[in-house]
Amino acid sequence: MVPHLITALTGPINELEQRVLDSMPAIERWFRLEWMEHTPPFYASVDVRNAGFKLSPVSTRLFPSAWNNLTPEMVPLAVQAAMAAIEKICPEARNLLVVPKNGPHSLAYLDNLVQLRRIFNMAGLNVRLGSIDPALKKTTTVELQNGESVTLEPVIRGKRRLGLKDFDPCTILLNNDLSAGVPGILEEIFEQYLLPPLHAGWPTRRKSKHFKAYEEVAKRLGKLLGVDPWLINPLFDKCEEVDLDQDSGMECLRSQVDVVLTRVRRKYKEYGIKEKPFVVVKADHGTHELGIVTVRDAKDMQALADHVKTLVKNRQTPLMPHGFMVQEGVMTQERVNNAVAEPVIYTMDRYVVGGFYRVHAGRGVDEALNAPGADYVPLAFEHSTQLPQPGVKPGASLPNRFYMYGVVGRLAMLAASYELEATDPEAEVYD
Amino acid sequence: MVPHLITALTGPINELEQRVLDSMPAIERWFRLEWMEHTPPFYASVDVRNAGFKLSPVSTRLFPSAWNNLTPEMVPLAVQAAMAAIEKICPEARNLLVVPKNGPHSLAYLDNLVQLRRIFNMAGLNVRLGSIDPALKKTTTVELQNGESVTLEPVIRGKRRLGLKDFDPCTILLNNDLSAGVPGILEEIFEQYLLPPLHAGWPTRRKSKHFKAYEEVAKRLGKLLGVDPWLINPLFDKCEEVDLDQDSGMECLRSQVDVVLTRVRRKYKEYGIKEKPFVVVKADHGTHELGIVTVRDAKDMQALADHVKTLVKNRQTPLMPHGFMVQEGVMTQERVNNAVAEPVIYTMDRYVVGGFYRVHAGRGVDEALNAPGADYVPLAFEHSTQLPQPGVKPGASLPNRFYMYGVVGRLAMLAASYELEATDPEAEVYD
Repeated sequence: MVPHLITALTGPINELEQRVLDSMPAIERWFRLEWMEHTPPFYASVDVRNAGFKLSPVSTRLFPSAWNNLTPEMVPLAVQAAMAAIEKICPEARNLLVVPKNGPHSLAYLDNLVQLRRIFNMAGLNVRLGSIDPALKKTTTVELQNGESVTLEPVIRGKRRLGLKDFDPCTILLNNDLSAGVPGILEEIFEQYLLPPLHAGWPTRRKSKHFKAYEEVAKRLGKLLGVDPWLINPLFDKCEEVDLDQDSGMECLRSQVDVVLTRVRRKYKEYGIKEKPFVVVKADHGTHELGIVTVRDAKDMQALADHVKTLVKNRQTPLMPHGFMVQEGVMTQERVNNAVAEPVIYTMDRYVVGGFYRVHAGRGVDEALNAPGADYVPLAFEHSTQLPQPGVKPGASLPNRFYMYGVVGRLAMLAASYELEATDPEAEVYD
Repeated sequence: MVPHLITALTGPINELEQRVLDSMPAIERWFRLEWMEHTPPFYASVDVRNAGFKLSPVSTRLFPSAWNNLTPEMVPLAVQAAMAAIEKICPEARNLLVVPKNGPHSLAYLDNLVQLRRIFNMAGLNVRLGSIDPALKKTTTVELQNGESVTLEPVIRGKRRLGLKDFDPCTILLNNDLSAGVPGILEEIFEQYLLPPLHAGWPTRRKSKHFKAYEEVAKRLGKLLGVDPWLINPLFDKCEEVDLDQDSGMECLRSQVDVVLTRVRRKYKEYGIKEKPFVVVKADHGTHELGIVTVRDAKDMQALADHVKTLVKNRQTPLMPHGFMVQEGVMTQERVNNAVAEPVIYTMDRYVVGGFYRVHAGRGVDEALNAPGADYVPLAFEHSTQLPQPGVKPGASLPNRFYMYGVVGRLAMLAASYELEATDPEAEVYD
C-alpha cells in the first residue's frame, strides 16, 4: 500500500507507469512474500529520480532524518507502522532511547528529533533522546520556535546496556549514520535491541553493495512487470581505494566513467532517447569532500580532475584513499514551482508512510539536489473520494501517481534488507 | 495508536479522560501484550457513549458495514491495517472474496461494499463480491451516483471451497452477520480462510457473553489506570428464552430491569451523579422486533409491557422465545449540530483506523441512536502541526480527545477476541 499523495506529475501516464499501476495486486503480493523471508530495515528514506522513460532510486538512507518534513496527515501512518515494527521487536517495551547524530544540530534536525519522538510516543512508548556526543557533558534543553522543546541527555553506559539516568530502554533507535566510525559506547550491547544494527552504518555499508542488491531485486520485479529492469535500475560501477593524492588516482575513475557512460549510451540508443547521458561520481560510503559530481563528457572529466588537484593542493593533510561509485545519472523531469525536484520516500517497517519533494532552484536536471540551498515541499494527500482502483473504467478515478514512487522506494528498501543480511557479522550460515 | 480526530468535545478534560491520556504509553503497551496472546477480530465497529462521568461501548459489530462513512483520509490507515491482517492470515493471497449481506441493498450499503473493495484492493488484492443470496441468480451490476459501479456475482460452491467463476480466493471476508442463520453454503469450507469465523455470527454470538468478556478486560484496564472499572463498563444482566407470548414472559425482564437499575442507582449515589439512571432492554443476539427500549422507571416498564402486548396481538404467528439483555444505559453528552451524537469507532486488525458520529436529531440523550433517521458525520483529522504528547507542558499541544474513544473501542474489540476464543467450536483445549 502506498498512500495517495499528489505528485507534481501532470503529464500523461507513460507505458512504465501504466504497467506499474496495472500490476498493483501482483506487486503488493510480491512484496508481501518477500517480507516473509526478509526483515525490512527499521526505517529508511529513498531519493527517487524520475526521468520519464526511467525511474530509479539514487540514494537509500538507513538512518533517515528530515522526518519533520512529513505532514501531520502522514504521522498516523508512521505511527501505525512504528507499532507494527515495535511489536515484532520488543512488544513488552516501555521505553525507547533515540540516539541522534552528534552535534551541533541545526533547528531542522531538532525538528526531526521532535517528530521521531512524537511518532514513537504515539505508538505507545516513553521516548527520550540520548546523546553519544562526547561534547555533550550534561542534560541540555533547547526551546524550539513552535513552543516545543528538545532535551538531549548524555547516555550512561552499563556493562551490557545503554540508557539514561532512571531510563532503561528495551530498544535503542539510532538516528546517527556512524559516518565517523562506530563508537565503543555502542559496541557489545548484548541485552538491548540496537536498531538499525551497527553494520547498517557507513563504516560497513557500501553504496555499491546496496545497488548490487538493488540490481538483483530490480531484475526480479522487472520480470514480474514484463519490463527491462534497466527502466528501474541505474547502471553503476565502482573504484575501490582511490588515492586522489597520487597522479594515478584518477585512472580508475576515468576508466569507470567511460565504461558506465558507454553502457548508458547504448541503452539510450536502444530506446531512442535523445537526452545526453551522464554519470554521477560519489563516495562509495558516507560522504566525501569531493561531493557528488556530474560527468557528461571529457570536458566534465577534466573539470573533475582539476577539482581534485585543487582539493589536494589546498589540504594540509593527505586525503585518505576512499572508494567511489560511478552511477548512471537519472535526470529528473519533475518541477515544483519551476525548480528541479525529486521525490523522497519515507518507509517504516515494510510500509511507505509518506514523502516530500526535495527542490533545488539553483540546480539542473542532471545534478544532485541534496546540497546546500535545497528546500522541502511536502506532498499532499489526494482527498478525492474516488481513490484509484484498477479495473475501474478510465477517468472514473484519479490514478495514484505516487504509487510507482512507493514501489521503487520499497524496492530500494528491500535491497537494503538483502544488503544487511549479506553484511551481518552475526549471520548464521546454513550450508 | 489512535489517529487524532476532532471530536465534538469542547469542555474541560475530566479526571477519567486525563487519566487515560496520561497513561497512554502504559495502555498501548498493555494492548501490545494482549495481542501477543489473543487474535484481534478481523474488523469491528464499536458504538461508544460518553456520559462525561463514564464512557462505555454499547454495541460491538463483528461484520461492520458503513465503512463508506470513513473519510478518504482514513482509508490509508485502513489499508495499512488490512495489509497487516492479510499478511498474517494468507500472505500468498492474490484474491479476496467479499460476501455481502443478502439483498435488497440500500445505496449506502453498496457504498460500503465499494469502500471495502477499495481498501483491500489498495492492500494489494484482487477483490470481487460474491453473493450467497439465493435470490441473486446471475451477475448483477449496479451503477452508483458517483460513477462507480458494484458487481455482485453468485458464489459457486465446490466440495471444500467457495469462489466465483474464474476466481478462487484464498480468503473469504464476510460482511454478513448471519442473522438468519448459517447457510449451508458457508459450512465445511476447509481449504480457505473464512473471516470473521462463523461463530462470530449471531447464531452463536450473545451480547451478554460479549459484555461479560468486556467486564473482565475493563477490570484489568481499570486496575492499570487506577480507576473504578464501572467508569468504563456498563452493568448488565440477561434473561434467557423470554417467551413474550406468555403472560409470565415479562417477569424475568421486569425483575432484571429492577436489579440493574438498583445497581446503577447505587453507583450514581456513590459518585453523587444527579442524572436519572436508566437501562436499555435489547435482544441478546441479533435484533428483535421489540427494538431497543429505554426504561427509566415503573412507567416505562408498563409502557414496555403494553408494547409487548400490542406486538403479540397484532401477529399472525407466535413470537419465538428470545434472549434479552438488560444493560445500564449510558447517556451521551456529545452533540453535533445540536443533535444527540455518539461516536462509532472502526478497527481493522488491532488498529483503530477511523470513526464517525452517529447523529439523531429526533432522539434523546438516553435513547438508542442506531435507528431510522440517524445520520453520519465524519470525524475530521486534527491537522495542527502540534500533535498531542504527554509530558509536553499544558497548552503546548492539543490533546487527542478521540484517544479515549479509541481505547474503549479497542477494549471492546479485545473483549470480542476473548469472546470468540471462548465460543470457538474448534478451540484446542489445554488441560
